[in-house]
Amino acid sequence: MLIAATIQRPTLLLDEAVCRANIEWMARKAARTGTRLRPHAKTHQSAAIAEWLRDAGVTALTTSSVTMARYFADHGWQDLTIAFPVNWRELGDIAELAGRVRLALLAANESSARFLAENLRQTVDIWLEVETGDGRSGVPWDEAERLDEMRRIIEAAPQLRLRGLLSHGGHSYEARDAPSAAASWAESLLRLRSLREALRNRGAGPLAISPGDTPGCMAAADFADIDEVRPGAFVFHDLMMRQIGVCREEDMALGVACPVVDVQAARRQWVIYGGAVHLSRDALSENGRLHYGEIAPFDPERGWGESIPGARVVHLSQEHGLVQTDAAHFDRFQPGDLLVVRPVHACLTAHHLRGYRTLRGQWLPMMAGPEEA
Amino acid sequence: MLIAATIQRPTLLLDEAVCRANIEWMARKAARTGTRLRPHAKTHQSAAIAEWLRDAGVTALTTSSVTMARYFADHGWQDLTIAFPVNWRELGDIAELAGRVRLALLAANESSARFLAENLRQTVDIWLEVETGDGRSGVPWDEAERLDEMRRIIEAAPQLRLRGLLSHGGHSYEARDAPSAAASWAESLLRLRSLREALRNRGAGPLAISPGDTPGCMAAADFADIDEVRPGAFVFHDLMMRQIGVCREEDMALGVACPVVDVQAARRQWVIYGGAVHLSRDALSENGRLHYGEIAPFDPERGWGESIPGARVVHLSQEHGLVQTDAAHFDRFQPGDLLVVRPVHACLTAHHLRGYRTLRGQWLPMMAGPEEA
Repeated sequence: MLIAATIQRPTLLLDEAVCRANIEWMARKAARTGTRLRPHAKTHQSAAIAEWLRDAGVTALTTSSVTMARYFADHGWQDLTIAFPVNWRELGDIAELAGRVRLALLAANESSARFLAENLRQTVDIWLEVETGDGRSGVPWDEAERLDEMRRIIEAAPQLRLRGLLSHGGHSYEARDAPSAAASWAESLLRLRSLREALRNRGAGPLAISPGDTPGCMAAADFADIDEVRPGAFVFHDLMMRQIGVCREEDMALGVACPVVDVQAARRQWVIYGGAVHLSRDALSENGRLHYGEIAPFDPERGWGESIPGARVVHLSQEHGLVQTDAAHFDRFQPGDLLVVRPVHACLTAHHLRGYRTLRGQWLPMMAGPEEA
Repeated sequence: MLIAATIQRPTLLLDEAVCRANIEWMARKAARTGTRLRPHAKTHQSAAIAEWLRDAGVTALTTSSVTMARYFADHGWQDLTIAFPVNWRELGDIAELAGRVRLALLAANESSARFLAENLRQTVDIWLEVETGDGRSGVPWDEAERLDEMRRIIEAAPQLRLRGLLSHGGHSYEARDAPSAAASWAESLLRLRSLREALRNRGAGPLAISPGDTPGCMAAADFADIDEVRPGAFVFHDLMMRQIGVCREEDMALGVACPVVDVQAARRQWVIYGGAVHLSRDALSENGRLHYGEIAPFDPERGWGESIPGARVVHLSQEHGLVQTDAAHFDRFQPGDLLVVRPVHACLTAHHLRGYRTLRGQWLPMMAGPEEA
């Protein structure tokens, strides 16, 4: 009975042992090829969990915002990459941060490279953001001429140190088995290497390569000839990673304990205190229907038990969740009980809940939310 | 240039004049029939905005959690309804709150009514939660026998004061014109009244009626013979309300100012700092495609200008947004610029951004997020 008595509201439970094992697995994989593991901290946003990464030998982090980089700098991290197209409007905060840690920024286009060359006074590392297929930000991998122009702008600015080519192969999330995720990863790598070759032919010096997405990092055979990897979600894993085929049930480190507040016998539904503001609306499609999480019984020692077959969160309001079950299981929960939602997307669920309760009862806070930032 | 210089990150802009006009409109409508307006505070979660409600004569609020009720009690509100099935696990906080304000709770089922009768010592008001068609929580309106049993349990407990029948006709959100929203509202009312009659026939005394949803409250001709209404979203309105047909473009009080961080010429897309953690994934379907917001230029005096035809947020990552535009408009924004997203669902967007910047530059904080709660 380590955690039960304290739970009144939707609470994010974290199995520290599972999380540490996930971290160890990735750290060992990176170490085998001498690849730097620079985990993405947006998944956990927690200095306490970052210490578990440090315990596994990690010395550098990735963040998705200047605010997040500042938080980790304030907690002793000296080597940070903001893996988001540089936001010109935060130049002051970037300069302040660059004055006290080794900071890397992303140049996602020519004008941003020029902006940094002309306006930033502090020394920073620069990665060229390369779009290798996910259709989000950065310069497409086959536009070598544009990337070469960016390289020249950066090389001409003494305060900017060009590090190499960085990509986020986010399209690996569309994979539905590990070989497909591995193939997506291999394609991104091939594109980065082909671009590196094209830039060398135009006179570029050595360029490091930094790909990063959890499905690819899990599914790849190894990280040979890769300087750095930046996975994030691997620390927790979730139903999305399991659906992609890169983690097992027992690798998922999170559950959201939610009070049952009503039961609907005619519909075989449990109504929970746990809505879109807690779980997020990230959904998985299963047999053509969307759902927002699987259900397990609460267990005060282990956090949660075996998932209940077929039980799914099928509807979310702001604070209510509706869980669909069937006649065989409906009687398992009554108002006043706790159940555990296994989240679809660990990053967003953690973001919403702002902190973790470990199975030993310890509270691990997260960085402050947007208001305080 | 009242607000421009301060905006570095995704920032929720609020037009106070529009918001106050929305409040006035609803307050006058309720006053015409002597109906109590008990606005739902989950939309804004802000003591400052609640003062604008007070300025319009409002003296009672609805909340969706015990935490939210505590926040407003701490800010001087003495009459609060927690319009969420009572959460047994928060009995201690409920008791504390009931000791200092007039508090109303929802009994959503027989066991919760019994729980309150047996375990709560403080005097509270009780509403029977009636499900009139939205398929969420509460007892279906045509199960008068169950509701009558709940009535008897409550009447037998001296500390519980039975107030009446409360419903949330959330299915009005499916309407796509005001007459449909009005019809949905009328159907919910008919069901509440028919139930009230059935309970009278079983010996119940006078029961008040409290329906509540913004589409219905906007579209209904008047609130005749309704004791209380509990709309929330009307204070801000949003694209969802406009799609339902119950507000105009000029009634929408919110915009999210987002920095442009990259542009994608081949795809005619702007990449913004503004993702799922800022805007929420609540989407609208338009011509068979989902989107997460419309786009207007930033205006330092008026907040935003006319919406840009056809421009839509079409993809959200955790912190990135992709805005689709066309050749005619693509050149309007470059990295470093601000644009404004008009949000799909005001409640969730406000929840994520945790505070408001008025067009005069004032910062209105929101209640603390889940971590601090």
